[in-house]
Amino acid sequence: MMLTTDLYGHDLISTQEWDIGNLDAAIELARRLKRNRYGQPYSTILSGKTFFMFFYNPSVRTRQSFECAATELGGHAQFLEPRSMRLKTAKTAGEIIEDAAKVMSRYACGIGIRILEDRISSYGEGDDLLREFARWATVPIVSMAHDKYHPCQGLADIMGWAEWLGDGVQKPARLEVLKGKKLLMTWGHGALARSWCSVQEAIIIGSRFGMDIAIAHPEGYDLDPEVLKTVQQNCDKQESSFEITHSPEKGYEGSNVVYSRNWMSPNAYQDGEFLKQAEIDRALKLKDWVCDSVKMSKTANAIFTHPMPIDRGREVTDEVASGLRSCIYDVAENRLHVQKAIMVLTMGNL
Amino acid sequence: MMLTTDLYGHDLISTQEWDIGNLDAAIELARRLKRNRYGQPYSTILSGKTFFMFFYNPSVRTRQSFECAATELGGHAQFLEPRSMRLKTAKTAGEIIEDAAKVMSRYACGIGIRILEDRISSYGEGDDLLREFARWATVPIVSMAHDKYHPCQGLADIMGWAEWLGDGVQKPARLEVLKGKKLLMTWGHGALARSWCSVQEAIIIGSRFGMDIAIAHPEGYDLDPEVLKTVQQNCDKQESSFEITHSPEKGYEGSNVVYSRNWMSPNAYQDGEFLKQAEIDRALKLKDWVCDSVKMSKTANAIFTHPMPIDRGREVTDEVASGLRSCIYDVAENRLHVQKAIMVLTMGNL
Amino acid sequence: MMLTTDLYGHDLISTQEWDIGNLDAAIELARRLKRNRYGQPYSTILSGKTFFMFFYNPSVRTRQSFECAATELGGHAQFLEPRSMRLKTAKTAGEIIEDAAKVMSRYACGIGIRILEDRISSYGEGDDLLREFARWATVPIVSMAHDKYHPCQGLADIMGWAEWLGDGVQKPARLEVLKGKKLLMTWGHGALARSWCSVQEAIIIGSRFGMDIAIAHPEGYDLDPEVLKTVQQNCDKQESSFEITHSPEKGYEGSNVVYSRNWMSPNAYQDGEFLKQAEIDRALKLKDWVCDSVKMSKTANAIFTHPMPIDRGREVTDEVASGLRSCIYDVAENRLHVQKAIMVLTMGNL
Repeated sequence: MMLTTDLYGHDLISTQEWDIGNLDAAIELARRLKRNRYGQPYSTILSGKTFFMFFYNPSVRTRQSFECAATELGGHAQFLEPRSMRLKTAKTAGEIIEDAAKVMSRYACGIGIRILEDRISSYGEGDDLLREFARWATVPIVSMAHDKYHPCQGLADIMGWAEWLGDGVQKPARLEVLKGKKLLMTWGHGALARSWCSVQEAIIIGSRFGMDIAIAHPEGYDLDPEVLKTVQQNCDKQESSFEITHSPEKGYEGSNVVYSRNWMSPNAYQDGEFLKQAEIDRALKLKDWVCDSVKMSKTANAIFTHPMPIDRGREVTDEVASGLRSCIYDVAENRLHVQKAIMVLTMGNL
Repeated sequence: MMLTTDLYGHDLISTQEWDIGNLDAAIELARRLKRNRYGQPYSTILSGKTFFMFFYNPSVRTRQSFECAATELGGHAQFLEPRSMRLKTAKTAGEIIEDAAKVMSRYACGIGIRILEDRISSYGEGDDLLREFARWATVPIVSMAHDKYHPCQGLADIMGWAEWLGDGVQKPARLEVLKGKKLLMTWGHGALARSWCSVQEAIIIGSRFGMDIAIAHPEGYDLDPEVLKTVQQNCDKQESSFEITHSPEKGYEGSNVVYSRNWMSPNAYQDGEFLKQAEIDRALKLKDWVCDSVKMSKTANAIFTHPMPIDRGREVTDEVASGLRSCIYDVAENRLHVQKAIMVLTMGNL
Repeated sequence: MMLTTDLYGHDLISTQEWDIGNLDAAIELARRLKRNRYGQPYSTILSGKTFFMFFYNPSVRTRQSFECAATELGGHAQFLEPRSMRLKTAKTAGEIIEDAAKVMSRYACGIGIRILEDRISSYGEGDDLLREFARWATVPIVSMAHDKYHPCQGLADIMGWAEWLGDGVQKPARLEVLKGKKLLMTWGHGALARSWCSVQEAIIIGSRFGMDIAIAHPEGYDLDPEVLKTVQQNCDKQESSFEITHSPEKGYEGSNVVYSRNWMSPNAYQDGEFLKQAEIDRALKLKDWVCDSVKMSKTANAIFTHPMPIDRGREVTDEVASGLRSCIYDVAENRLHVQKAIMVLTMGNL
């Protein structure tokens, strides 16, 4: 049975912009691709086709999983570094995005873009860049993580959580199993001054599927107010709860999924510069903010999740990260499957 | 119907070195590949084969289109950066080209090389490098743009011009439509100090197919005298005209194709150094040299062409570049099709 | 006839760790793949599969041949540079190898790693890194050259030597032809301060197949004592001879295979730094240590071998390197075939 959706040609910049039915279809297809990883008809569905990957920021996991995804669908992903692109900026001569996007649309079946906090001069610029590409490209633009969102991570997250909270991997539960489960998104200290993208995507997609959302972070680490508003609206629609606390412990109570991750503060940018070292220095002092087994014992036998790579010992202890309730490797694997599903639905010769 | 040519194993360093019949065959095949982009028998003709791409200079368009070309033919293009090659030079220990080329011929079905003005210490060195590789390699050497020529751009140009000057893309005219049409190659000011390669290739291949050639540039921006001599000989043979003017306007009269592009002066190299900033400073003052709609109104309803990326506002105005008579995106797309055709003819399992 | 071995899932860090029967099987399969390079069933045996290549050190030959190998088997090799990996080190926050290896095992069918002397702070660290990856990965780890060993080069060497010492390429001799032949491994001066890996692998695998081993090097250029002990044990088992001399000439007498190669001294590391320039300065003074035709005239019509790239004029003269008894290009080609064989046997869908 082939899935029918109306996703051919669609961009994926945030999951919030996709209908819930389409998100369901993407996860359902990802599950099939996980069961039958190299089988027909999907193994040749991108035959001869090329997906462009633009990495303003380096990446291992994202690059590996996208390039594998294209290969497993019979296509090819090109690894491109924009430093060689000579795009026009305020300061330098170069090509305008309209020209770049229109030509690339003649060559590629889709374009992925990754641009994070340290390659821009203020929050939101990365999102603007993706939308400018999407405006002109006639092929799908897919976020491979940008300053605001990380839709592929969000899809991998909910796919993995449903597997673990349902009847297990062999007979994965539908996404309905997430309804009414409590997601704790807690800040963790660490030495990496991380982007908001994975974190914001997780609470957006979690709330979309009816999870109760609890955010815990130290004072001064607020996320994007617009995203928080969206989460509140999602929760209102689903009649689920949404709370924000500044206690490193309280949020654990009753949680089903614990997501501990470092993120930067809203003050990270000053005068157009990303002050990474100042962020790190500040974060490293907040040593109470670590997910450990004592805190986990207060949960409703929660699973531990993280988009990886993990800053072990700071975001989370080894005991939890490598424990029996850690779903990190399954979620990481799911990146591959959801990205294949997205490519099939938005770019495939169906 | 399969095409029969004698091109298997041939290098492509300049189109001038290929028989006119072979150039015709390449364009004819490119047209078929454009109509039937992913179809048999060409979609598997490089199955299992590898094309090496050596980028002494970074590139987006060229890299994307060559890598797509190999993928669409069922093969794979490897992106290689010679900085990791440790070739022997006057100053450093390393491998001689003979050894490199002989070994690579055991692995690859062809080798593409890109080397432009800022990676060499005098004009002509890039061309010498390609010919040294061609001397030893037993597989085709293809220029992906070097200091003197850019054969794939030239082929994409004439394919696109014939489409626009003939009966349109759906029923593209043969190359004979170019005979007697006037090509204006005009210098444009700009901030990029560009190579002569695309420009020289265009007037060489245009004159080969019977176009009248007009070159316009400020005093002091002469192109390679050897190339100009070749153009004169081509024009003599075709009984077409060839003129050079130093007026930014005069050449537009009666033109059918206008090609406005910045290029460096012959004084760009001094004592083995490429003086990029001095070139840019000098060029930026010559603001009269821009292709705009006033000038275009003097032509015979000419199409506007450019190899891209465009330095908009300096080489050409937005109004012209994005106007109804701009063929830039079609020419850019044709890069893919002509490169596929070249690979099929010189490397394919026919 | 398909080969049956028990190699599926096995690592290849040194050939010494593989049964002799498995090495035989790998070479036998490499021979078949050389005869029928693009044929079934091997041309699709990695269909949809991805091999990860981690290059801590840049490389041309190794990268080209591994990436070609995956392509020729229907799969794809990803070129990855660990500088973007953010692995945890003594000094920096990052991901632990356990996490990296476990996730990569979900994506890839195998992982190749290259790490040489100048990316580590003491000899043996590269080998430790490979073994740490192998500990956690559930897919094969293959050395693409590391500080201690270079198994793929070793296999290409013996395959090439057997071709040249037997009845020729068309009807290649079995590896038994190596038994009783004398391999001279001689140091050559040069400006590259090269790794021990190719050299150590050659004497290990040569001795394994019954060759008499002679090592010649200036005082102060001893190889790894542990490797020398292994060579001695191999020779004892095969009842062949093993000698070390410090004469630049004596070892040539009676040799069947001459391998002249520069290598670093054991003093190259001091306080965790690799003192490359000091090594080069010292080596360049030892000009007697070059393989030339006078020395070659003392051999038993020996073939000349080298893993390339060659530092011509220092490690060996042009006359010898390009002479009729030089097997360098065939050995280089064999890298492709043995690597394909290794992939088929350890990762293939057999």
